[in-house]
Amino acid sequence: MRMAHLVTNCSFSPSPAVKTHPKSPNCGHNSIRFQNSKSSSSSLIAKSCSKRSKKLYVTRASASVQAPADKTQTPLTGSQQESAHSSSKPKKVMVIGGDGYCGWATALHLSNKGYEVAIVDNLVRRLFDHQLGLDSLTPIASIQNRIRRWKSLTGKTIQLFIGDICDFEFLSEAFKSFEPDSAVHFGEQRSAPYSMIDRSRAVFTQHNNVIGTLNVLFAMKEFSQECHLVKLGTMGEYGTPNIDIEEGFITITHNGRTDTLPYPKQASSFYHLSKVHDSHNIAFTCKAWGIRATDLNQGVVYGVRTDETAMHEELSNRLDYDGIFGTALNRFCVQAAVGHPLTVYGKGGQTRGYLDIRDTVQCVELAIANPAKPGEFRVFNQFTEQFSVNELAKLVTAAGAKLGLEVQTKSVPNPRVEAEEHYYNAKHSKLSELGLVPHLLSDSLLDSLLNFAVQYKDRVDTAQIMPSVSWKKMGAKTKTLSV
Amino acid sequence: MRMAHLVTNCSFSPSPAVKTHPKSPNCGHNSIRFQNSKSSSSSLIAKSCSKRSKKLYVTRASASVQAPADKTQTPLTGSQQESAHSSSKPKKVMVIGGDGYCGWATALHLSNKGYEVAIVDNLVRRLFDHQLGLDSLTPIASIQNRIRRWKSLTGKTIQLFIGDICDFEFLSEAFKSFEPDSAVHFGEQRSAPYSMIDRSRAVFTQHNNVIGTLNVLFAMKEFSQECHLVKLGTMGEYGTPNIDIEEGFITITHNGRTDTLPYPKQASSFYHLSKVHDSHNIAFTCKAWGIRATDLNQGVVYGVRTDETAMHEELSNRLDYDGIFGTALNRFCVQAAVGHPLTVYGKGGQTRGYLDIRDTVQCVELAIANPAKPGEFRVFNQFTEQFSVNELAKLVTAAGAKLGLEVQTKSVPNPRVEAEEHYYNAKHSKLSELGLVPHLLSDSLLDSLLNFAVQYKDRVDTAQIMPSVSWKKMGAKTKTLSV
Repeated sequence: MRMAHLVTNCSFSPSPAVKTHPKSPNCGHNSIRFQNSKSSSSSLIAKSCSKRSKKLYVTRASASVQAPADKTQTPLTGSQQESAHSSSKPKKVMVIGGDGYCGWATALHLSNKGYEVAIVDNLVRRLFDHQLGLDSLTPIASIQNRIRRWKSLTGKTIQLFIGDICDFEFLSEAFKSFEPDSAVHFGEQRSAPYSMIDRSRAVFTQHNNVIGTLNVLFAMKEFSQECHLVKLGTMGEYGTPNIDIEEGFITITHNGRTDTLPYPKQASSFYHLSKVHDSHNIAFTCKAWGIRATDLNQGVVYGVRTDETAMHEELSNRLDYDGIFGTALNRFCVQAAVGHPLTVYGKGGQTRGYLDIRDTVQCVELAIANPAKPGEFRVFNQFTEQFSVNELAKLVTAAGAKLGLEVQTKSVPNPRVEAEEHYYNAKHSKLSELGLVPHLLSDSLLDSLLNFAVQYKDRVDTAQIMPSVSWKKMGAKTKTLSV
Repeated sequence: MRMAHLVTNCSFSPSPAVKTHPKSPNCGHNSIRFQNSKSSSSSLIAKSCSKRSKKLYVTRASASVQAPADKTQTPLTGSQQESAHSSSKPKKVMVIGGDGYCGWATALHLSNKGYEVAIVDNLVRRLFDHQLGLDSLTPIASIQNRIRRWKSLTGKTIQLFIGDICDFEFLSEAFKSFEPDSAVHFGEQRSAPYSMIDRSRAVFTQHNNVIGTLNVLFAMKEFSQECHLVKLGTMGEYGTPNIDIEEGFITITHNGRTDTLPYPKQASSFYHLSKVHDSHNIAFTCKAWGIRATDLNQGVVYGVRTDETAMHEELSNRLDYDGIFGTALNRFCVQAAVGHPLTVYGKGGQTRGYLDIRDTVQCVELAIANPAKPGEFRVFNQFTEQFSVNELAKLVTAAGAKLGLEVQTKSVPNPRVEAEEHYYNAKHSKLSELGLVPHLLSDSLLDSLLNFAVQYKDRVDTAQIMPSVSWKKMGAKTKTLSV
């Protein structure tokens, strides 16, 4: 086993090199690589702890086997249970972007379910917060402390590879060392407003997401031919067409002939567009190289607690409520908690698919346990319910009233370019067919979300709440101040 | 007017810095930027000649007005003639990638038609030849000598900006200095096999094409709101669906509802995919920013002479016959000329749209003269006839026999992943409606193409002819030898 970059269980503080890297991610071409030279901080970290960590690697597999029984509430089918344990050693899952909102919850969930998990992350999401003057509502521990706490609570080891997947040398070492059976790819800049701040962030987003994914595909072709790619896409790839949205493909009869073709894409930000580009690139490699891939076109995720992240405060997930990284329902709950009016963009008729973060982790697990065939490019629409923004505002207002919160709503000028009233009917049956048992948005769930927001309301910076990025007004000049 | 980067009519040799840039374009992230630092060769060139060239800039407009009458055979409609001369000064067209095969022919054609032309190019296409050990069938002059010769023959000035459009600082200066009314964008890596050599070329292709185009869009938004983007796409974006291919959009009735949506894309190389990505990015900016754009989904171009490039040997266009940059019909003519069997990939049923390079320049002129409206994303399928590879081989064989050439055909294993027998019916009426009078592939044209190949047959390196890149076998490792 090669040790380079593998840093789990080394008792070091987060490397100063990571936090003070002289190249920021928001200045275009000079910035799109993190730790991608041989003398990068990731390598330095690896070297600094290679001697101490050797013993731990040897015991890694046994740690998983000795882990305590699962405690999650999510029912698993027989095939799923079998999947992680079908051979003598557990299935290996590489979670790229495993320090982020969905990635961290997923990494813990899969580890808890008996998968052998490695997180690959360059931690740049934390840097974005520093640069933009933002912070998670919930205090979050360092990735190193998160993983140590998980180990101490469950006995389960999560490997950690700190580096940038745009650096192919780093990614290659991670693949060769870990030899994943599945790669779950959350490792992308995931905010539409971030991609619309300025030219350099737009370029960063498309470069980072497109090239990072290309590198993952090449690493799979070169080092893990059997590896199944589970790629996080977005429902936003489809836009808001005036016909039903199918899951990835649509059968079209035209001038007397019929074919089933990729569903037309109409993305509405440089971020959403990057996901469209990824989907096309992945589909091609499935056809040309026999890559097996599942593209999860995910809706808007809400909630923060999963069974695993709720075990200890050091395992807490991040919760973003700001105008850049916050998403509709989470942001509304924080607004309600602090007495800030719910900010509805424009007419509020924008309708999207939503899902509980507990279903995100369940969906990813289902995709892993039921992999695509070699050469198959499979698309699942990953959400459980549709809501318009106005419907969400009403639900939060009603739930707030039950808790004694007087919730106001105000319409603010829409910073985006999007239809504010439109038809929307998106199919989402494929994950249900695999066994998804959804957590639907209920009064009780909204109560708990609101209560959670109230618990942390002293940490809310109301200056972060309003939209600060305009789709129409974005410029070529780099914004160097926090937005 | 700002002088930086503007190098026309400076009597210098091609900068050694351009040819010996220490960062090659084939090593991933370290290579995707050419001349994009402040100390780059482009800036150095500009400084070296800024004093001498000032006088020429002042006389630029008058040079265009004083130019001799047009000699081309292409009929122009009244609206076209009016377009270049509708105001007191001629319309300005920036030809990005104006040193390449289609770009050079287009730049001269537009200059000849009275447009004020600037070429923006980093000349990297010439570097590819050096690195891969390839060469044009036709000897081509340096871009500087080409432009000087054009000036001496016609009195018309073509401005030259040498630099990389992935360098936004360079591109900004070019836009601010030239203030184009139209930007014709050929400035992309345009070979499917090149993009499939190895990972670094795949990454280079997608980065270069996607980020370069994003930069053009930002430059238009920032500096030339009224500028019309004429972007070269490819018919390969559509793939080979089992239904008719429409021009960019298709009206779909599905579950009782109807919408007109972007035509589904199924590209079959990292190059073709980069064009798909561009199309999606451009469509978004038309909607979000009001950019006006025409996406020319061009077929396979054949031929080499246009009225302008035929004026003098120093104006000659390049003709590629190699396995990387050569395209079907051009390569067949060279093969026939040197007695090499025509290399049909696989079954030869692959059908595509084709057009004469004289129609390429005509189509671009029509698009410029009839611009898209602000906010309009317009797609034209730019080809004149459909042929299968087997049909082309038969046509070349018959034309060769008339010239006394005994032409053989052999099937070689298909290096690509593509359907070798398929339905193909692509619409292409929009450019005809604007006035395109096509040069169809006739016996006489094939004769002249073959004769042209025979004229230069001593320059043919038969080692370049066979396919050297495999879609399936491409690897992550960088190929450092010529292919």
